[in-house]
Amino acid sequence: MLTVHLESGKVDVRDRPIPRIPRGFARIRLLAAGICSTDLELQRGYYGFSGTPGHEFVGEVDAVNDEDGSGGVGSSGGGLSKAWIGRRVAGEINLACGKCDWCRRGLGRHCPHRTVLGIVKHPGAFQEFLTLPLVNLHAVPKTIPTDHAIFIEPVAAACEILDQVAIPQGQRVAVLGDGKLGLLVAQVLQASGARVHLFGRHRDKMRIAEQAGATSEIAGKRLPQMEYPLVVDATGSAEGLRSAIAMCEPRGTVVMKSTVHGLVKVDTAPAIVNEVTLIGSRCGRFEPAIKLLSRGKVRVESLISEEFPLSEARKAFARGATKGILKVLLRP
Amino acid sequence: MLTVHLESGKVDVRDRPIPRIPRGFARIRLLAAGICSTDLELQRGYYGFSGTPGHEFVGEVDAVNDEDGSGGVGSSGGGLSKAWIGRRVAGEINLACGKCDWCRRGLGRHCPHRTVLGIVKHPGAFQEFLTLPLVNLHAVPKTIPTDHAIFIEPVAAACEILDQVAIPQGQRVAVLGDGKLGLLVAQVLQASGARVHLFGRHRDKMRIAEQAGATSEIAGKRLPQMEYPLVVDATGSAEGLRSAIAMCEPRGTVVMKSTVHGLVKVDTAPAIVNEVTLIGSRCGRFEPAIKLLSRGKVRVESLISEEFPLSEARKAFARGATKGILKVLLRP
Repeated sequence: MLTVHLESGKVDVRDRPIPRIPRGFARIRLLAAGICSTDLELQRGYYGFSGTPGHEFVGEVDAVNDEDGSGGVGSSGGGLSKAWIGRRVAGEINLACGKCDWCRRGLGRHCPHRTVLGIVKHPGAFQEFLTLPLVNLHAVPKTIPTDHAIFIEPVAAACEILDQVAIPQGQRVAVLGDGKLGLLVAQVLQASGARVHLFGRHRDKMRIAEQAGATSEIAGKRLPQMEYPLVVDATGSAEGLRSAIAMCEPRGTVVMKSTVHGLVKVDTAPAIVNEVTLIGSRCGRFEPAIKLLSRGKVRVESLISEEFPLSEARKAFARGATKGILKVLLRP
Repeated sequence: MLTVHLESGKVDVRDRPIPRIPRGFARIRLLAAGICSTDLELQRGYYGFSGTPGHEFVGEVDAVNDEDGSGGVGSSGGGLSKAWIGRRVAGEINLACGKCDWCRRGLGRHCPHRTVLGIVKHPGAFQEFLTLPLVNLHAVPKTIPTDHAIFIEPVAAACEILDQVAIPQGQRVAVLGDGKLGLLVAQVLQASGARVHLFGRHRDKMRIAEQAGATSEIAGKRLPQMEYPLVVDATGSAEGLRSAIAMCEPRGTVVMKSTVHGLVKVDTAPAIVNEVTLIGSRCGRFEPAIKLLSRGKVRVESLISEEFPLSEARKAFARGATKGILKVLLRP
């Protein structure tokens, strides 16, 4: 089968045997995958990554291994695991141990023993077949087309904010950044009843959030100061966090959605004087994301910029890293 | 009267007329004041401060001006304001407008129109007589000796954490920094039912927290990683925040108590991956601080290093800035 290999910043496509299926796992035939900013960061050498990247995907279950009889929690116990075969699925990307305190508290996303699909010690989705534990699978309803289903994972990451911060109906929220994540965050928060104002750099991109009811403006040199009770930094830049803190009103909340590597220079004094709360925010639960996409509350078709076959992964990565390009899809 | 004047880093003592009393204000004869790290920062030129510093004090009300008949909220309405005369008081340091949304919500400490005693546009406590609005005054109970009462303000700042974070009984808390604020935070959190472990650099200072029931250790190069659900950074250093984030367990909370000026380099990636919450924390309500000091739950006598008359303020500032010295008192 074709598999994408990333090492020392170089993307190449290799031929490899179809993976064996560990106990309690499913083997999934890829239908489509999306290149995420994290994948581009892995290419830039972060985490010293080497292997097959990819964690935004939709696929069809090809085979399962439930030899030990415990297909996992809830969805797949015993013989039921066979019911997954042939189903279209998305999958949570954190492979948790299932036994530690974090897992028992339902926080497998923070399991200290976890591996992460396409990021930490588990081969990713940019290949014809991938494997994931049955407990990680979510059936994709017919109402979500395959190309839209690759957004379940990033929409879940946007939805994570709703699990972390109570947002009253009608609350004013500033979202900084009109990249893929910023546009999804703006739509998700707007759909949940907030009044979102998006600050970005591209009128055409911000129109996507406007169609969901958000307002927007080009982020100029003078941003509003201490004006928003909630600010989400999705700029992916070091300056984004500084701006977000300055825009947040006293006792307000800044959600940190930008994974910026290395040291970020932050002026902590205004955060302390204004008693601002900064919350780091990462992956989220898939259920609310599937609901939003299924009901058409978050529009993703205009986020898809281009698509390539797996065999042209190198070109796809180059396009994904090009300014102005939003989501690039890979197909088997 | 004697007044301390700070300008361009130079401390000198001047003779000035006793201040007039604005409507709704009290004039307070100083009994004792404490030099805070913020005062030393003002001396280093932060905020471009020029004037009379000092915000930790205890004094005796000498006169009030309630001409407009509205002595303020609660404690001092109408003719009752005269009842303050002769009483020993501490005073909240934020002078709020009393009319804006923040003030209406009981958050005058964040009033955008506020001045701040000895910090922002209101002459401080390092003088024989100071003025404060009657609404800012708190009677000091007899159970708190004058020298201990100057700690009401910094103990209130430590108590602010209890208003911001719910701390379950017996929860493990790491406090970083064995300076004045770190020692007060450790004692306040221990008294409120947490199990505090203090990381500092001085065995003798940490003993003060140990007497309150906390445990402690010298902060070495290898600090525990991702181990504490709650970490308070009271180091006053840029490295403190980085260490606090690294010590905090996933989904845990870091309280930022260190006012570090300028840009602080922070590795935000672990805060985001572990979804850590960072909370800026400043001044607090006086009521819980007065209770704790009154009941002997926080011990402050061993925090007092030296004392000087106002006339020797320059020497007092120099001693306050000396390594190893804790609280320096000023007396009229």
